[in-house]
Amino acid sequence: MESTNSASGTYDFGVIGLGVMGHSLILNIGDHGFSVVGYDTDSAKAQSLTDETGDQPIRGTASLEEFVDLLEKPRRILMMVPAGGPVDAVIKAISPLLDEGDLLLDGGNSHFPDTERRAKELAAKKLRFFGMGVSGGQEGARRGPSIMPGGDKEAYERVRPVLEAIAAKVKDEPCVAYMGSGAAGHYVKMVHNGIEYSIMQLISEAYDLMQRGLGLRPEELHEVFKAWDDDELQSFLIEITAAIFDQRLEDQPDSYLVDFILDSAKQKGTGKWTSQSALDLGVPTPNIDVAVTMRYLSALKPQRMEASETLLGPPSQFEEDRDSVIGEIRNALSFAFIVTFAQGMALLRAASDEYNYGTDLASVARIWRGGCIIRARLLEDISAAYTHQPDLPNLMMDDHLAKLLSQEQVDARNVVARAAYYGIPVPGLSVALAYYDAYRSARLPSNLIQAQRDYFGAHTYERTDLEGTFHTEWGD
Amino acid sequence: MESTNSASGTYDFGVIGLGVMGHSLILNIGDHGFSVVGYDTDSAKAQSLTDETGDQPIRGTASLEEFVDLLEKPRRILMMVPAGGPVDAVIKAISPLLDEGDLLLDGGNSHFPDTERRAKELAAKKLRFFGMGVSGGQEGARRGPSIMPGGDKEAYERVRPVLEAIAAKVKDEPCVAYMGSGAAGHYVKMVHNGIEYSIMQLISEAYDLMQRGLGLRPEELHEVFKAWDDDELQSFLIEITAAIFDQRLEDQPDSYLVDFILDSAKQKGTGKWTSQSALDLGVPTPNIDVAVTMRYLSALKPQRMEASETLLGPPSQFEEDRDSVIGEIRNALSFAFIVTFAQGMALLRAASDEYNYGTDLASVARIWRGGCIIRARLLEDISAAYTHQPDLPNLMMDDHLAKLLSQEQVDARNVVARAAYYGIPVPGLSVALAYYDAYRSARLPSNLIQAQRDYFGAHTYERTDLEGTFHTEWGD
Repeated sequence: MESTNSASGTYDFGVIGLGVMGHSLILNIGDHGFSVVGYDTDSAKAQSLTDETGDQPIRGTASLEEFVDLLEKPRRILMMVPAGGPVDAVIKAISPLLDEGDLLLDGGNSHFPDTERRAKELAAKKLRFFGMGVSGGQEGARRGPSIMPGGDKEAYERVRPVLEAIAAKVKDEPCVAYMGSGAAGHYVKMVHNGIEYSIMQLISEAYDLMQRGLGLRPEELHEVFKAWDDDELQSFLIEITAAIFDQRLEDQPDSYLVDFILDSAKQKGTGKWTSQSALDLGVPTPNIDVAVTMRYLSALKPQRMEASETLLGPPSQFEEDRDSVIGEIRNALSFAFIVTFAQGMALLRAASDEYNYGTDLASVARIWRGGCIIRARLLEDISAAYTHQPDLPNLMMDDHLAKLLSQEQVDARNVVARAAYYGIPVPGLSVALAYYDAYRSARLPSNLIQAQRDYFGAHTYERTDLEGTFHTEWGD
Repeated sequence: MESTNSASGTYDFGVIGLGVMGHSLILNIGDHGFSVVGYDTDSAKAQSLTDETGDQPIRGTASLEEFVDLLEKPRRILMMVPAGGPVDAVIKAISPLLDEGDLLLDGGNSHFPDTERRAKELAAKKLRFFGMGVSGGQEGARRGPSIMPGGDKEAYERVRPVLEAIAAKVKDEPCVAYMGSGAAGHYVKMVHNGIEYSIMQLISEAYDLMQRGLGLRPEELHEVFKAWDDDELQSFLIEITAAIFDQRLEDQPDSYLVDFILDSAKQKGTGKWTSQSALDLGVPTPNIDVAVTMRYLSALKPQRMEASETLLGPPSQFEEDRDSVIGEIRNALSFAFIVTFAQGMALLRAASDEYNYGTDLASVARIWRGGCIIRARLLEDISAAYTHQPDLPNLMMDDHLAKLLSQEQVDARNVVARAAYYGIPVPGLSVALAYYDAYRSARLPSNLIQAQRDYFGAHTYERTDLEGTFHTEWGD
């Protein structure tokens, strides 16, 4: 490649894709003293990056050749483009321009099997590659995200100084760590998002209970969530929920924006991938499953409006004392958050075993404490649980969390029961309670299922009192 | 191919795979006056088929060449081998021996994308092919299964007389019908199995409630299920459940077998496929999802035994009146069965739209009335619902079923609430109720989820009062 630029080969880091996330990450990297080139096919975005960063060693370009030329060798290039086809397109376009040993990072929400495939394809071309989850939205990317890199360990060491510099910090520790081999980085990010789906579903159920059941208005909901954000429930999603309930319409300051938002939730696939992978690995994650499914159900708005006139239910206004109900909802939420993390962590352990990632759950919990969407005070406890007992079979069995669950289950029962009586759907809280109750059941009724399977399909069963497998000629 | 047999080219029908299902189907086909050749690599199985059928025009062979040679042209061959690799292996072995226009049917539980692929591969070889679900277990295969064929319509017409002869009959109508193009047959069978998973889970929850909550012994459970099988709950799975609770230990006639069966349920993948496909198509099927996940959870027996000593819950003995609780459980079960079918049918409609199957839901319900594992009196109502209103958006909106649900929801609420209070896990009943309550909610709290997504990811939202999509700089 012919060099045409006096700055040729001098930039520390390259970023492909100047969308919200890529742009914010570049500014973040620049803040920490690294020089960065940003590439985008959209020359307006490239120019505006150059213009706005003034004296900083940051520049944009819409020429892929120039982009590659400007980077110091061996190059370090972060792709921040939409998952799927766009990632493959970028790899195809840039690979011929790169030199052996150059490093490509995929910082998007790629599906983990794609990451496995690309790692193999790029290794064959003697290029280094790894997948990396980045969470925190625009604000996180700009001020400090949680970063979940995985794959080529040696390659990780080459970008580690940059990643540790730009990551969120909690108690001076950067929220980035090596998540394991293969597609571990994207797998961990996928499960992060699955947990995020569940927590959002659970918070929305709490909202529904307080709005429909207790008649709370947004200003009151704002106060409730603000109080929760000051206690052990403290988390980013609780915090922004409080803020959302305080947002007024621009032109009608007495009206709250949340009341005018359509109740039809969308999604971009990472929650679905989590559920599908859990199904493949045989790990129960009912809270993630039901969160995904409720987004689908919410989209059936016209059907729901019709059904509301046909399918009967009880009046939804609670008759119980407002403050005690709110207290119960708070504990039910705390209970279900712990159960959700237990499911997600169990899935990570199973995936690590199946794909030989070597993921350390304590590290996962540690880097989720800051920067990412699911950051929460609870992650201190989770991090402590796995640090103390790395082979914990299920997070619920940690001494401290087991005690907390055992206390909070009482209120969770009241909330689930009340919602059933008053006709307010709480599938997330319900399956959290069912998961807890099933997990603590020494004996489940699944013996009947095995009997049925043997009855109609001769699938055999095991016995509690004898070794081996058995088949019965039922009814004879 | 050299013909070495005087019976060469005279047999009506061929079956590959002499396992339980293949063997039973051959006897069934033979009963209806067709001549059949069965092939298996295991020559003992082949010989035993020939021996046991005596004078009937049925014979077994362990030679694939002889098998092909014996069949009348164009040949009609049904594969009854395990899904996955074995089907491909059979196709690979037999294709070179077949002639243009010969017909291969896959009667196993193949995953529908495999069926799509094989249909294309075989069309390229000028062979006819279609996928066909067969349900009813060994007994159904022998006496009359429910048969769900899909794919090549012309090919279906060529085997229709055989299939209509061997299928179960309900009110003189055979339980077989063309399910649509492509992999429709296997798709319908997959959803059948997903529904089966849910119904089995729901029955097991009813068992748990009556055993743990009411202390009912197997002989009492036998009576309860027997009574239910005599009323509107009548179905194959309720019937065999009654029989299972009556089964004693051979050597201890005072002990019931069910009490000695290990409560760790297994599965063969079709339930999982249903959930994964529903996730891909964006259709809520929480009852199927949770049934699959509970099988996974049941497998964690050692963890559960340990957790039973650590995670606290309330005493599980109900204090309420036994008979009224049983009545409520009965109605909750009926309610959740309808909800399960509503989810399954919604999934079939979405799949038919997505893959252009052209599946007629009334036909599906009609052929499920007999022969198959989920056959139930309820399917008469479901069949009537779709016959009367083919474009019903959701089964719950059928006049008759909506009324039934509106009556039974009261008891479903009591059962779910009581289970929550007493610590008995009923995820199936809970999500059935949540699905019902969410579907009849004109407004769900998903507006908050959209607000959160816009807050942290600038994903935009829609409004109830204005057209378009909106983004807010939250908190400004």
